[in-house]
Amino acid sequence: MSSGVIFKLDLDPYITMALREDISWGDVSTEATGLQEKRARVQLMAKGEGILCGLEVFRRVFTLLEEESSFETPFKDGDRVEKGQLIGVVRGKVETLLSGERTALNYLQRMSGIATLTRTYSDILKPYKTVLLDTRKTTPNMRIFEKYAVRVGGGKNHRYNLSDGVMLKDNHIDACGSITEAVKRARAHAPFVRKIEVETENLDMVAEALEAGADIIMLDNMDNETMKKALALIGGRAETECSGNITQERLREIGEIGVDYVSSGAITYGAPVLDLSMKHLTVERET
Amino acid sequence: MSSGVIFKLDLDPYITMALREDISWGDVSTEATGLQEKRARVQLMAKGEGILCGLEVFRRVFTLLEEESSFETPFKDGDRVEKGQLIGVVRGKVETLLSGERTALNYLQRMSGIATLTRTYSDILKPYKTVLLDTRKTTPNMRIFEKYAVRVGGGKNHRYNLSDGVMLKDNHIDACGSITEAVKRARAHAPFVRKIEVETENLDMVAEALEAGADIIMLDNMDNETMKKALALIGGRAETECSGNITQERLREIGEIGVDYVSSGAITYGAPVLDLSMKHLTVERET
Amino acid sequence: MSSGVIFKLDLDPYITMALREDISWGDVSTEATGLQEKRARVQLMAKGEGILCGLEVFRRVFTLLEEESSFETPFKDGDRVEKGQLIGVVRGKVETLLSGERTALNYLQRMSGIATLTRTYSDILKPYKTVLLDTRKTTPNMRIFEKYAVRVGGGKNHRYNLSDGVMLKDNHIDACGSITEAVKRARAHAPFVRKIEVETENLDMVAEALEAGADIIMLDNMDNETMKKALALIGGRAETECSGNITQERLREIGEIGVDYVSSGAITYGAPVLDLSMKHLTVERET
Amino acid sequence: MSSGVIFKLDLDPYITMALREDISWGDVSTEATGLQEKRARVQLMAKGEGILCGLEVFRRVFTLLEEESSFETPFKDGDRVEKGQLIGVVRGKVETLLSGERTALNYLQRMSGIATLTRTYSDILKPYKTVLLDTRKTTPNMRIFEKYAVRVGGGKNHRYNLSDGVMLKDNHIDACGSITEAVKRARAHAPFVRKIEVETENLDMVAEALEAGADIIMLDNMDNETMKKALALIGGRAETECSGNITQERLREIGEIGVDYVSSGAITYGAPVLDLSMKHLTVERET
Amino acid sequence: MSSGVIFKLDLDPYITMALREDISWGDVSTEATGLQEKRARVQLMAKGEGILCGLEVFRRVFTLLEEESSFETPFKDGDRVEKGQLIGVVRGKVETLLSGERTALNYLQRMSGIATLTRTYSDILKPYKTVLLDTRKTTPNMRIFEKYAVRVGGGKNHRYNLSDGVMLKDNHIDACGSITEAVKRARAHAPFVRKIEVETENLDMVAEALEAGADIIMLDNMDNETMKKALALIGGRAETECSGNITQERLREIGEIGVDYVSSGAITYGAPVLDLSMKHLTVERET
Amino acid sequence: MSSGVIFKLDLDPYITMALREDISWGDVSTEATGLQEKRARVQLMAKGEGILCGLEVFRRVFTLLEEESSFETPFKDGDRVEKGQLIGVVRGKVETLLSGERTALNYLQRMSGIATLTRTYSDILKPYKTVLLDTRKTTPNMRIFEKYAVRVGGGKNHRYNLSDGVMLKDNHIDACGSITEAVKRARAHAPFVRKIEVETENLDMVAEALEAGADIIMLDNMDNETMKKALALIGGRAETECSGNITQERLREIGEIGVDYVSSGAITYGAPVLDLSMKHLTVERET
Repeated sequence: MSSGVIFKLDLDPYITMALREDISWGDVSTEATGLQEKRARVQLMAKGEGILCGLEVFRRVFTLLEEESSFETPFKDGDRVEKGQLIGVVRGKVETLLSGERTALNYLQRMSGIATLTRTYSDILKPYKTVLLDTRKTTPNMRIFEKYAVRVGGGKNHRYNLSDGVMLKDNHIDACGSITEAVKRARAHAPFVRKIEVETENLDMVAEALEAGADIIMLDNMDNETMKKALALIGGRAETECSGNITQERLREIGEIGVDYVSSGAITYGAPVLDLSMKHLTVERET
Repeated sequence: MSSGVIFKLDLDPYITMALREDISWGDVSTEATGLQEKRARVQLMAKGEGILCGLEVFRRVFTLLEEESSFETPFKDGDRVEKGQLIGVVRGKVETLLSGERTALNYLQRMSGIATLTRTYSDILKPYKTVLLDTRKTTPNMRIFEKYAVRVGGGKNHRYNLSDGVMLKDNHIDACGSITEAVKRARAHAPFVRKIEVETENLDMVAEALEAGADIIMLDNMDNETMKKALALIGGRAETECSGNITQERLREIGEIGVDYVSSGAITYGAPVLDLSMKHLTVERET
Repeated sequence: MSSGVIFKLDLDPYITMALREDISWGDVSTEATGLQEKRARVQLMAKGEGILCGLEVFRRVFTLLEEESSFETPFKDGDRVEKGQLIGVVRGKVETLLSGERTALNYLQRMSGIATLTRTYSDILKPYKTVLLDTRKTTPNMRIFEKYAVRVGGGKNHRYNLSDGVMLKDNHIDACGSITEAVKRARAHAPFVRKIEVETENLDMVAEALEAGADIIMLDNMDNETMKKALALIGGRAETECSGNITQERLREIGEIGVDYVSSGAITYGAPVLDLSMKHLTVERET
Repeated sequence: MSSGVIFKLDLDPYITMALREDISWGDVSTEATGLQEKRARVQLMAKGEGILCGLEVFRRVFTLLEEESSFETPFKDGDRVEKGQLIGVVRGKVETLLSGERTALNYLQRMSGIATLTRTYSDILKPYKTVLLDTRKTTPNMRIFEKYAVRVGGGKNHRYNLSDGVMLKDNHIDACGSITEAVKRARAHAPFVRKIEVETENLDMVAEALEAGADIIMLDNMDNETMKKALALIGGRAETECSGNITQERLREIGEIGVDYVSSGAITYGAPVLDLSMKHLTVERET
Repeated sequence: MSSGVIFKLDLDPYITMALREDISWGDVSTEATGLQEKRARVQLMAKGEGILCGLEVFRRVFTLLEEESSFETPFKDGDRVEKGQLIGVVRGKVETLLSGERTALNYLQRMSGIATLTRTYSDILKPYKTVLLDTRKTTPNMRIFEKYAVRVGGGKNHRYNLSDGVMLKDNHIDACGSITEAVKRARAHAPFVRKIEVETENLDMVAEALEAGADIIMLDNMDNETMKKALALIGGRAETECSGNITQERLREIGEIGVDYVSSGAITYGAPVLDLSMKHLTVERET
Repeated sequence: MSSGVIFKLDLDPYITMALREDISWGDVSTEATGLQEKRARVQLMAKGEGILCGLEVFRRVFTLLEEESSFETPFKDGDRVEKGQLIGVVRGKVETLLSGERTALNYLQRMSGIATLTRTYSDILKPYKTVLLDTRKTTPNMRIFEKYAVRVGGGKNHRYNLSDGVMLKDNHIDACGSITEAVKRARAHAPFVRKIEVETENLDMVAEALEAGADIIMLDNMDNETMKKALALIGGRAETECSGNITQERLREIGEIGVDYVSSGAITYGAPVLDLSMKHLTVERET
């Protein structure tokens, strides 16, 4: 995410659109102060504790408004911050600081919240081989930010979107008539360099998916007993992923069972925001 | 939100961008089925209970992909849905249903979640004159959707963005040197047809804001005693708003105290998503 | 307007679009000279007299084409320029100067024309408390430039657009059936932090608007006698605005009567352009 | 302009941008009425007299907001309308009519104003062979609308923009050192299918331009005597255009002298708007 | 490609941009005829023989200009057409047919050319298990069209772009220091559901890639003997792809050797266009 | 093309779109190396011989990704390069070099290919007055790049697009009924500063076009004898252009006959790409 390439091509359009969402034809409060051109600094403070994520996005909001603005911080994405800590200082024109504040915080608080929850989940899985994955249940127009936060929190990304990776879910299987037919069609038409994943809900479906040659078998909403049987049945001939109502309590059990991957939508859509604020704006003395 | 004007001008760009986020150069799974052109139907099911919100956005995702697609439902925004209920049926090409599913649900689940929480909050305030407001702590590029969900849930919207309404917060006051100076500048420069709101943290600031001629005085993070004193001090000469760590428990107390408005960021950023899914895709027999 | 925030977010898209309007796939005349890469300077001259407005927009046209270009001028927006005066000097590549010339002048001439006319109007109102306002009768895709010019000329801005401020006009009232009903609905549905303005055409309507609780009452196309009666009737319980065929002659009378605001569409759509030109292009000697 | 091709490719982006300029996140007044979904009709009335122009653009504003809206009128572009006449009726949802009104009128009033002034000018030239042309002194992002209005008013268009037609003006000639050199360079580099026009300020320059082989010679700001001499000198070996402070009075003299073309910036930037309004909104009874 | 989803989201922006490239502010030739509004038909003729591809894109060019236009043809993508055959008939306004002609043909001719060459290549490989792939050496802003043409011609697509599939090429290996290190890093960081492909230039590299655990080994620019040895060495433990100067002559040899995939940039960048034209425009009699 | 004006306005949108085409949400291979932030250099090598064209576009791809990147080369557009020569060195972050490589080469190879073929054609015509022109048979969204390459190769550009120059082709003539009628309509409606070109297929049409007053007569697909007769008939009263199946062999004959212009679509759509590659990426030692 510190990648300039990604910022220029992929992030700037979203951030600019978010800034326009908040500043349609000006910032009437800041303009009313008449001080918008003065140079100032303001502090970014932690009001809660957690894992910071999105510091480059936070900085980018201000540099998109004013190239000469700066954000200095000893923190980097993935660092833990304690409640009350000073995270860093933003410098720029008064208008840059005040007009960018909310958009910058809105990104940073959400991304940090996701990284914080993901860290909790991935720490639980540390003793096991099971890898934590995200899903496509992300906020519209926030996916690239949210999936990055998952990586910062110690998870890995499942497929980015529908163009990325073949996943045959219940509705695809319904449309094709059977897992066997669905996998056969996918084998014939799927692009090169793809694994094929099949969603299953019971052991019969697991057996059929295995027979059909799925590369990855997703065990959807199964209880522990069924998962154990599924793994025994698969016997390493396909990778395994489980999903569905993954609580922190169940993570350990899944690790014990030894599923290869566990995917959780909640690490993105269920993460509380990290409480942060910008405080103590100081207009700098002119020299 | 059922307004065609708003959809064409304001919502379509976001929804289209969200669809491109999920479909960069095709849906490789659906294409692999070879059934993408077949006509089908699929059910939208409630897996949790709450207030539905965003049905038109949900429908729009599919009509943006295929004009001939349809979404039939007896529900309208603001209706309560019970767990397990069939909400409606989407009809269209297989590819329309499968490629639009996740984006449509991502909007509907978030908007319904916000409406559900807002309903809970606003119901608590029903016996009182206090009106529930949202904030600008919304998800980037989701504001228009989230603020609509607040209205559906029974809240009202605070200012839409920085172009809309003068709010002098701590950092503006710091920049100007005092509340008196800040309000004076705002009176002189603010556009016509605006009320001026000032954020205060203690009774001295309330007194100064009142003296300076603020139209609305925001009581930020005050305890109940201080709020009561503030209201007594103001004596109806300005509208009042309180904000900061508003829990469901405190809402009733605030209502009792008689503040005009209470604003809560949590009704947007802290609302759990409503659990919904699309199930039972059926390819329609050709006639 | 010197605000970098506003330029980056709000003005650059318009200016870039205007440049593309004038340069679809190149400047065939300048390219034909073969001198496009040479560095040169050119003078900006006043061929008429008036109030300058839009100097930053003028400069921006050239810096959008070439970051290294410069525009030096002792003038700032709001300054008066006399016929024949040298306003400033633009430096850059020959192609920058020649390809940007017309677009830069088209903005500067129109904005200066509006500032000039507004200055004339606002000077007339100086002895009175009446404040001059603009309207939404602006040129499509020029509003942000034209409303800025009004401020530079000494006027204030009425609402920016339909998202900004509730104004119940004849057609809204017709739709609702009466002023009373229209105001009642607006009170119930209008966003927070809004005043409600009602357009009236006679004293009965004024009385009804006042009764209904309008914050601002617009006196549309009334003669002086009626306006006086309206003001007496209102007695300070609402702000007042008058509008309709505002000539320079009538401004003084309105000031005398003591209406709070007078709005004029003509200060934007009826202002003659200020005559300016770029002259004496000189290719700079290479050193 | 009635061309669908041009609308889809060239006009819709401008009109949509203009609508977004006026409706950033909704029409708060119309939404406050709660009647936005009702079907209604409203009358388009002439409050002044002149030549109508832009009826398709006017209609398009409403159909962009609502495909089912309609605009019925017996008039077509170029028709004269008298003060007080009913021009047509717009039908659609209340929100379509109220939210589109100002943008639609802003286009129609400006385009009609230009067509009206151009008609006056071109009527004066009717007895003569001299053809009336416009210039590039158009409003930014309004050129395609303004140049169309010139054609409707009976004028012809000079080059559309810098990509269209080689015109060597004073600054090009200054850059090249002489007319002879400028034309020589243009001959060598100019694209195929182009005539070359040279701007001249006196008879020496005319002679040099003629010698250099200019296809069209522009006589800039010359008095009648000089123009006559210039035409005698040219003797039909190049086309001629005159420009500069073209008043209605001078048009006849220019026609008498027999210059081929006369170009006027004032027909676009100096045309008063035609006074029009939308009145008598009626909510249609539901059937 | 007949997919509406893909057209709306992915193709329309390119096609619209291409139409604007050819029609900046109108079609001056067609407008000059004054017949632009008349309804007409025109024939699409084959002037060469080959495989048709892009018929939906061809049709879309016209429907983007005019929704009511139509294109009737008995052919579908992948059909062979003979020189001189009538492919179909386009109906619409004169302006639609004339303004869309060149853009429509430019797409159809290129896509058909690629499908034709790919068909020749893939027919050669029919007796073998070797699958023909394309590359990323496509024309900028034409990839989605060109990769579709490859599929129509009987080839399969290699990864769509840099976001799609991990391919470690010479420069990645140089950056990492060794194949072993590169694969190790890719295993650790690559997203889920990805195979890892490694480019090799000799047998040592093949051995190292195999050892490192590459899923696919690309044999770059190897002669037949080396390829045979590589396949023997790999022994089915990884998939194999060969690339580099693939002529029609070599395809058969590669098939004989039994490489899994052969990729060719020339099927996209080296395919001659198929000669097509639109002829015999007939203005339809008005009824 | 070295023009900054053209890059900012006309080329950057295409290049950025092409980069997004290749990098939808990141470069998964480069990110997998973990070295993306390291500074490195890489060589641009010629693997074939020809005329270089597009060096500024090549450089721009990298500076759009990273402003600090550089491309140093002793070559300029129009220079011949030999097989095996080092063309230049690109420096930047590893991710800049690897993520931009393919897009940069895709432009440079195509543009150089066109310049190379055009050079061959235009060299053949050197002894004659006949000028080589291109056509509108360019690749969609590549026209500005391809027409520039024609100029670099020594050709001239025919009209840029449909907005640029009146060309009455078979279908326009069919629509109007006759050449005479078509030219008459064009004379009346065509914009100022335009020549009118008419396409003819035999001597009768040539005679009619001449009589009608065409400025340029296009001799379409005529044999040498017919062309000679056409030129004799025209006798210098109109410019002449020939077109249709222009092979290198026929160019000399056309030059001998003395047609003014010869236009060839094949110089753009039939030019083989120039073989180039980026090699030897070296991570720079940190200092």
